[in-house]
Amino acid sequence: MIRRLLLASALIAAPALAQRAAPPAPAPVDPKVAKLRDAALDDDIAWDIVEGMTTEVGQRLAATEAEARARTWAVAKLKTMGFKNVHVEEFQMPVWLRGTETAEIVAPFPQKLTLVALGNSGATPAQGITAPVVVFKGYGDLASAPAGSLAGKIAYIGNAMEPTQDGSSYGAFGAGRFVGPALAASKGAVATIIKSIGTDHHRNPHTGGTNWPQGVTPIPAAALSVPDAEQLERVAARGKPVTIHLTMTPRFAGQGTSGNVIAEVPGSDPKAGVVLIGGHLDSWDLGTGAIDDASGVAITAAAAKRIMDAGRPRRTIRVVWFGAEEPGGIGGKDYARVHGGERHAIATESDFGADRIWRFETNLSDSAAAVTGRLQSALAPLGIVKGSGVAGDGTDVGPTLALGVGAVDLNQSGLRYFDTHHTPDDVIDRIDKDQLRQNVAAWTTMLAIVADAPEEIGAVPPRR
Amino acid sequence: MIRRLLLASALIAAPALAQRAAPPAPAPVDPKVAKLRDAALDDDIAWDIVEGMTTEVGQRLAATEAEARARTWAVAKLKTMGFKNVHVEEFQMPVWLRGTETAEIVAPFPQKLTLVALGNSGATPAQGITAPVVVFKGYGDLASAPAGSLAGKIAYIGNAMEPTQDGSSYGAFGAGRFVGPALAASKGAVATIIKSIGTDHHRNPHTGGTNWPQGVTPIPAAALSVPDAEQLERVAARGKPVTIHLTMTPRFAGQGTSGNVIAEVPGSDPKAGVVLIGGHLDSWDLGTGAIDDASGVAITAAAAKRIMDAGRPRRTIRVVWFGAEEPGGIGGKDYARVHGGERHAIATESDFGADRIWRFETNLSDSAAAVTGRLQSALAPLGIVKGSGVAGDGTDVGPTLALGVGAVDLNQSGLRYFDTHHTPDDVIDRIDKDQLRQNVAAWTTMLAIVADAPEEIGAVPPRR
Repeated sequence: MIRRLLLASALIAAPALAQRAAPPAPAPVDPKVAKLRDAALDDDIAWDIVEGMTTEVGQRLAATEAEARARTWAVAKLKTMGFKNVHVEEFQMPVWLRGTETAEIVAPFPQKLTLVALGNSGATPAQGITAPVVVFKGYGDLASAPAGSLAGKIAYIGNAMEPTQDGSSYGAFGAGRFVGPALAASKGAVATIIKSIGTDHHRNPHTGGTNWPQGVTPIPAAALSVPDAEQLERVAARGKPVTIHLTMTPRFAGQGTSGNVIAEVPGSDPKAGVVLIGGHLDSWDLGTGAIDDASGVAITAAAAKRIMDAGRPRRTIRVVWFGAEEPGGIGGKDYARVHGGERHAIATESDFGADRIWRFETNLSDSAAAVTGRLQSALAPLGIVKGSGVAGDGTDVGPTLALGVGAVDLNQSGLRYFDTHHTPDDVIDRIDKDQLRQNVAAWTTMLAIVADAPEEIGAVPPRR
Repeated sequence: MIRRLLLASALIAAPALAQRAAPPAPAPVDPKVAKLRDAALDDDIAWDIVEGMTTEVGQRLAATEAEARARTWAVAKLKTMGFKNVHVEEFQMPVWLRGTETAEIVAPFPQKLTLVALGNSGATPAQGITAPVVVFKGYGDLASAPAGSLAGKIAYIGNAMEPTQDGSSYGAFGAGRFVGPALAASKGAVATIIKSIGTDHHRNPHTGGTNWPQGVTPIPAAALSVPDAEQLERVAARGKPVTIHLTMTPRFAGQGTSGNVIAEVPGSDPKAGVVLIGGHLDSWDLGTGAIDDASGVAITAAAAKRIMDAGRPRRTIRVVWFGAEEPGGIGGKDYARVHGGERHAIATESDFGADRIWRFETNLSDSAAAVTGRLQSALAPLGIVKGSGVAGDGTDVGPTLALGVGAVDLNQSGLRYFDTHHTPDDVIDRIDKDQLRQNVAAWTTMLAIVADAPEEIGAVPPRR
């Protein structure tokens, strides 16, 4: 998921229906771009990558042997596709591994609950812990709890997340996962159980990383599926004290190796700057990482291949399948460390599933202002509108963007994304082939325009 | 689920649109019946029962302490509601308990699979077994496999089940579960893994009983979730041998106690026969048994209470919350053993979820032929059509029906039922309050007409 969504807000003013001025004449669409776009609506390359990676590799937890197998798979695939300069750039990182994770309501109504550990969760003793539960309906209620009031208790944090097309409800309600466990720990809690940061009603809990500030000792932190969380709230609403037995044995396993897989479509003008695109190769370990983010690496690589096959572009297109995004964008940081000194025209990633792109936004130097108009005309037939915000999403490209690199964001619909995000249900069944093809068409269009733009695409002030 | 659906077939002839004769004049609807029906569309009683049972008891596996707690809960609830003669009729039965259940593809592409043991499954050694997999796309392919050809192998049985409104696809594709494992065992298989008998695409496998004919030693038998089954098929389609490591430790735990919970609305005419209605109290252990079958016991009890509150009916309405339906209709058999000698007017159950009733059918003595017409008129405003088949569904009422008792079936839509049936997802989230109320209205209407019918409702030839 995209870190910058945490602070995203709706910037679109509602237009009045009456008395609208005629819009300015759209920029003409280059017939070559239109042809590439329309051909991509029949794309099978992206599906082939998603199907192959999820079938032949499966889950790809960062810095594990599964992620290493994924890198091997990726290098072979990208070479077969004809990309140049295909290689891995390794880096070291802490390894976190899931263990046992079970929970039961002991009283007043004995029953099992379905939950999963959050990434970076601490562990209980092997025999588990039994403790009373304090129910907080939301993160705000936890924040108001007095210091020390959770001593010896399990904190439960609910939320009222609903789907949003722009994904902004993830940032709005995600605090319960991102920082809730640490806050509860600071108030004495022996464990934290959150309602999944998710919008489905299936018994598939949503994992995801949680953060421990310096000085806070990790406590066990887990997510209940949405139905289990609502069940716990119903049980608690009966008014009797609720006791839970919780067993969780995840562990930190020292340092391990992850890496970014890099492939290029060499451009004819090395001075025009690199067009950096990609997604992340790692996934959480519960599903097969189909929408998060096999689809993102597949969409961007498929689009780049279509441009490559149509002839040498002006700018080099660099496809990066980042490692270790989920534990905190570690691959993206390493990329910026290694490549931040190179000239980039734009940096843009796909990490929000495979549903249709509904909006695009840009952050381009004034010298490239006309590019936005050309994108608008060429993307409109795909049902894509121009947003009024400033581009700059992306955990993996974030550290590169922060150096003053331009961006073009192609925003996928988030209406279904958080039904599946970080759950066992993140499998290929969730991907709609036609919407996946629309993504490839949009990315192909974007690359055709940006990589060949005659204008200089220079440095910009980062979005923030 | 309803045993008789196994052999159900579509009996409805497609009517020509042109030149249709005017239908016969509908029977008039008794205003008292209409009033009861319409009031039931605001029912909260059924929801209260489902919410209470699933929250305060949770899963209710047959012959376990959880089912015993459910009986205690049920007796208290039915007494509070004002029913008479509330009591439990216990019986003994074999107990089967779930254990560990894990599986991984070892080769060619290592990855975990999500599965659950089928009821009555045998066990592997504690350390599991590792064996090659033979993929059968359907039960028919397994049936064609030569004797002995599965020696030392794990049989996988797929299916192509799709939703059907009348639920008939369960019977059509269920053989893979009902008898597939035993057939594979007879051909030498060391374990059987089936694709869940289900119509969803979530990673929640569907459990359910499997049968071992006399002389067949149970082997481990499990169901993969639909996405996991399709994943296994994709992996196998790559053409390399597939090896699975399977660990399953369910066990038979001797004899245990189950029981039927019985409650009555006494009638004014003891000679007119009992109207037997109900559902089953036990559930599988993965979810909380909301649609299978808290909703059935709730719908029928709510309707009976509405009739009770409107004044003494002619016939006694007996509400039975059957025990141990899932392991093979054990409660229903015990009921017929104990009560088969009593005069019953009809016997009818609700065990197909909580979605709207779309059809009704009857099997009534000629003396009561007019009852069907009155049902048709009174149920039509609820969107319910008269089917052209003969009533007689129901695992629990089956043994009573077999004695020559009449039936009125109120058929719920099965279009969503097998998305959730026997999975962890069988929780209250699946129940639509308005559709639940339509069920209560239909049952209230049926009871108002049948319990008070002035006609004799006598013995019938059973459907088969």
